Amino acid sequence: MNLNLDLSKKNTPTGTTLTCKGWVQEAALRMLLNNLDPDVAERPEELIVYGGRGKAARNKEALALIIKALQNLEDTETLLIQSGKPVGVLPTHKDAPRVLISNSQLVPKWATQQHFDELEDKGLMMYGQMTAGSWIYIGSQGIVQGTYETYSALAKKHFNSNLKNTLNVTAGLGGMGGAQPLAITMNQGVCLAAEVEEWRIQKRLETRYIDEIEHNIDAAIDRALQYKQEGKALSIGVVCNAVELLQRLIDRNITPDTLTDQTSAHDPLIGYFPEGLSVSEANTLRKANPEKYVELSYATMAKHVRQMLELQRRGAITFDYGNNLRGRALEVGVKDAFDFPGFVPAYIRPLFCEGKGPFRWAALSGDPQDIYETDKLILELFPENESLKQWITMAQERIAFQGLPARICWLGQGEREKAGVAFNKLVAEGKVKAPIVIGRDHLDTGSVASPNRETEAMLDGSDAVADWPILNALINTAGGASWVSLHHGGGVGIGYSIHAGMVIVADGTADAEVRIKRVLHNDPAMGVIRHADAGYDIAKDTLRKHRLGL
Amino acid sequence: MNLNLDLSKKNTPTGTTLTCKGWVQEAALRMLLNNLDPDVAERPEELIVYGGRGKAARNKEALALIIKALQNLEDTETLLIQSGKPVGVLPTHKDAPRVLISNSQLVPKWATQQHFDELEDKGLMMYGQMTAGSWIYIGSQGIVQGTYETYSALAKKHFNSNLKNTLNVTAGLGGMGGAQPLAITMNQGVCLAAEVEEWRIQKRLETRYIDEIEHNIDAAIDRALQYKQEGKALSIGVVCNAVELLQRLIDRNITPDTLTDQTSAHDPLIGYFPEGLSVSEANTLRKANPEKYVELSYATMAKHVRQMLELQRRGAITFDYGNNLRGRALEVGVKDAFDFPGFVPAYIRPLFCEGKGPFRWAALSGDPQDIYETDKLILELFPENESLKQWITMAQERIAFQGLPARICWLGQGEREKAGVAFNKLVAEGKVKAPIVIGRDHLDTGSVASPNRETEAMLDGSDAVADWPILNALINTAGGASWVSLHHGGGVGIGYSIHAGMVIVADGTADAEVRIKRVLHNDPAMGVIRHADAGYDIAKDTLRKHRLGL
Ligand SMILES: NC(=O)c1ccc[n+]([C@@H]2O[C@H](COP(=O)([O-])OP(=O)(O)OC[C@H]3O[C@@H](n4cnc5c(N)ncnc54)[C@H](O)[C@@H]3O)[C@@H](O)[C@H]2O)c1
Ligand SMILES: NC(=O)c1ccc[n+]([C@@H]2O[C@H](COP(=O)([O-])OP(=O)(O)OC[C@H]3O[C@@H](n4cnc5c(N)ncnc54)[C@H](O)[C@@H]3O)[C@@H](O)[C@H]2O)c1
Repeated sequence: MNLNLDLSKKNTPTGTTLTCKGWVQEAALRMLLNNLDPDVAERPEELIVYGGRGKAARNKEALALIIKALQNLEDTETLLIQSGKPVGVLPTHKDAPRVLISNSQLVPKWATQQHFDELEDKGLMMYGQMTAGSWIYIGSQGIVQGTYETYSALAKKHFNSNLKNTLNVTAGLGGMGGAQPLAITMNQGVCLAAEVEEWRIQKRLETRYIDEIEHNIDAAIDRALQYKQEGKALSIGVVCNAVELLQRLIDRNITPDTLTDQTSAHDPLIGYFPEGLSVSEANTLRKANPEKYVELSYATMAKHVRQMLELQRRGAITFDYGNNLRGRALEVGVKDAFDFPGFVPAYIRPLFCEGKGPFRWAALSGDPQDIYETDKLILELFPENESLKQWITMAQERIAFQGLPARICWLGQGEREKAGVAFNKLVAEGKVKAPIVIGRDHLDTGSVASPNRETEAMLDGSDAVADWPILNALINTAGGASWVSLHHGGGVGIGYSIHAGMVIVADGTADAEVRIKRVLHNDPAMGVIRHADAGYDIAKDTLRKHRLGL
Repeated sequence: MNLNLDLSKKNTPTGTTLTCKGWVQEAALRMLLNNLDPDVAERPEELIVYGGRGKAARNKEALALIIKALQNLEDTETLLIQSGKPVGVLPTHKDAPRVLISNSQLVPKWATQQHFDELEDKGLMMYGQMTAGSWIYIGSQGIVQGTYETYSALAKKHFNSNLKNTLNVTAGLGGMGGAQPLAITMNQGVCLAAEVEEWRIQKRLETRYIDEIEHNIDAAIDRALQYKQEGKALSIGVVCNAVELLQRLIDRNITPDTLTDQTSAHDPLIGYFPEGLSVSEANTLRKANPEKYVELSYATMAKHVRQMLELQRRGAITFDYGNNLRGRALEVGVKDAFDFPGFVPAYIRPLFCEGKGPFRWAALSGDPQDIYETDKLILELFPENESLKQWITMAQERIAFQGLPARICWLGQGEREKAGVAFNKLVAEGKVKAPIVIGRDHLDTGSVASPNRETEAMLDGSDAVADWPILNALINTAGGASWVSLHHGGGVGIGYSIHAGMVIVADGTADAEVRIKRVLHNDPAMGVIRHADAGYDIAKDTLRKHRLGL
């Protein structure tokens, strides 16, 4: 393999031939390179996968060294990654993870964006976001399901079980936010989304995640209103700053039915765009005067939140979509910033209490047919689950694969181990061409402490307790996951979260079956235990049903 | 076993009969109860082991549940401890840790003493210090070696290789600080130490760590000066606040030869005593008005540091001894607080670069003879190491065992695995009566990020990077340590440190030998790798010599 990778091209090995000494190492290599596939990553040449500056490796040299280390790694060794840089290979054993990753971790007193930036400038750190630095990002596709679930929960709560004839306003069409238009139209609603960078909208058009692009704000609003009236499920990306769109809505006295945001507010420097600057002006200022840039970003974010609060007062169902926009606004004095809720307590937590979360898998062969095989299997395994059936069917129709073919669906305690063992059998029996990689987002039931998002407003007040993601990383390491990661700052920015990742490879062996059973049991179990400990009844029921706890 | 333990008594099982289902579980149980042995713990009835409020379990109910869980734990299961409370038992395998512990971890933005206190009040958290919550504290004895090493490095640097005819002033004779008088007199110096709580000095008298107690400050100073002149290696504990002693020294124009401090400044509420209050007045105020108490604490700490700076200007060799006193003073405006160095960059880091650190072990039999066997073995294994020989000899003469007999000595890369494997053989051959537990402090070469202490002034500026202790915990979990812990806030207080613990049991089996070799290789290797990565030449040499790194 060429170590001097051209990152503007695809570099992921596919097929059934190993380039490493075992399928687990091979899986890590392919998923790392898949994270950097130009169809998957937002800016592959800067190693940026998604979420502001969420990277897969610290720099090109580190990337080359990781590739080399993975290719040389034995079945009884473990590679250590410190903020995107390989730092050692140490002896372990076959049932231990092949890779252990710690990204962006700082001693709390120094865990500020500013100190992080200093360390990053010195080449000492990297921001791993959630699945970027832990090599299990699968493109916008991964987030569609979560967003779809959220809007469908919202539709069940506030509308007629779907979003027909509703106007849903949002902003930010990046790696994750790009899934919003599709998730909304899948729920039959109209989506109107502001995005400053035109190429982002173009990218979403290419992958069929969005339907239309528009430069004129008023024209976009008019068309969206028309679609709403006609009950057409269409999405429009408008090239402007979020605050410009919201201001026009306020000025024209138009209240959307739902309102949220997925700009990269977690990162005021390399994520959020202040208003009043073109993209190129902003990019220049960011380099020339980062302090000034951050100041302007904060000012726009404060305005942004005030506008959302105003539209909420006028009747829009308003929620935060996990980018810490409210937190940023609060920092600069918007006292009522948290008057609109986060999406987790509003719509997702009941699912977490059943151990449910964004379970996902990818076909290492590179062959979409392998995923269709797993789709079929999933529908056979859980015939009673109607919404799962609906999701898989729609996903097959409307979701374009990016990079290695992959699928996501929310599975809970008991279901994940069942699916994992069945996938391993598919591999063993040759029904798929190569091993299947199984993982999940860090935004999951038992793997994250993030008081402005996943653990907002916990029943017992334990929002900020970070022992849980740490125990999650430790038990997955003990159980023999293929690679395990512990990150800081994903989703909501430096200082605001601690979270763990887990990936396990189904290579069809008997050893793998034992590990899969254990890891896919323990991983969601941490979530059920955590929510039961906090006092949630659904979690207590799940605990009893699955005989977890002490 | 009685679950309603009387913690004023010894409860540690000894001898060769198992009360659990295997020796690893038994070891965890015995070491947990040993941490709470009244001869070992500072306040066993409150579950406080040392270091302010460093606890072994969250509360009595949690303790009873941990004991029960350990007794029922199978060889293929792992018990999870969240801030001192058992939360689950999950399936793993024989080469995985039997216990995984996360203590006091908070999402950084909320990682303040105040938020911690709120959570502790709600019963949601516990402060684990370093070895308190990770069940490998062995009494003041554990710290004597570190303190002895520090003073002997200091003596080599500034005096005639020993402290004869020098006056060494300090304060705080608690769980750790209590080792100072003995370490100083072992180096042939005079020790004068302030301690507000009389019972603490009494306790040190009983264990022969200190020679005399005195209530009158001037009388204590006079006698110390006389001993200094006569070259007598004696220690005096004076019952007063540290600032009272230092003020008298300043007023009487007496400059000590060395000056440091080990009051529990890391915890302004339940650790440090403000001046002007009796102990009972302070205890009352702490409950009645904690805000006021903390305010007074900070004021005294500021004064304390100003006095140390003054005595430094007058010629005293002044250093911080890892309690974050300088950090506290800086918080309240003492701008030059960091003008005296921490003991790590001044004296300890070169040892860390060789993978050296506070290696320790305890005899589960409870029989001191077992430790004498290991002492003998250590001297045979490392015949060329003169200072090790001197230490073991002096320790046998002057150190009274507390709780389970134990020994500490600083061993480095290569040496630890050698010793561990040899201990395992002792057990296998029946030369000791029961298995040996091997562990270390979290203050070690590769297990801690603590910018005001262990990682102060790193060569590359990576003081606050916490990926290292996390990788340490992960690799020790992967390698099959017997129990592994990750803590926050040890030594220097909430917000200021992240650190990992590791214990491995030598039960004489072949399986244990494999695990010991691996874990005692990887654990210090993390330190060598970390220091080499930061640019230290000694560490780079060690790396090459032991073929670590990539
Ligand atoms: N709730 C969740 O589950 C969830 C999931 C993923 C991401 N997030 C959060 O959502 C945010 C977006 O994630 P991403 O991966 O899409 O990030 P990204 O950096 O890839 O994309 C952000 C997009 O927002 C645009 N943008 C920035 N400021 C803007 C402004 N003021 N007006 C209009 N557009 C603006 C950028 O041009 C970019 O296209 C992040 O903060 C992330 O942490 C939340
Ligand atoms: N450098 C190291 O390796 C190292 C090792 C151990 C402990 N420490 C740090 O040293 C400190 C002491 O640890 P410990 O285990 O002995 O704690 P401890 O709480 O058991 O004892 C602290 C002692 O200080 C006394 N004290 C508090 N304020 C005082 C004052 N103003 N004047 C005089 N006496 C006062 C208390 O009465 C108590 O006896 C902690 O902050 C700990 O984190 C550093």
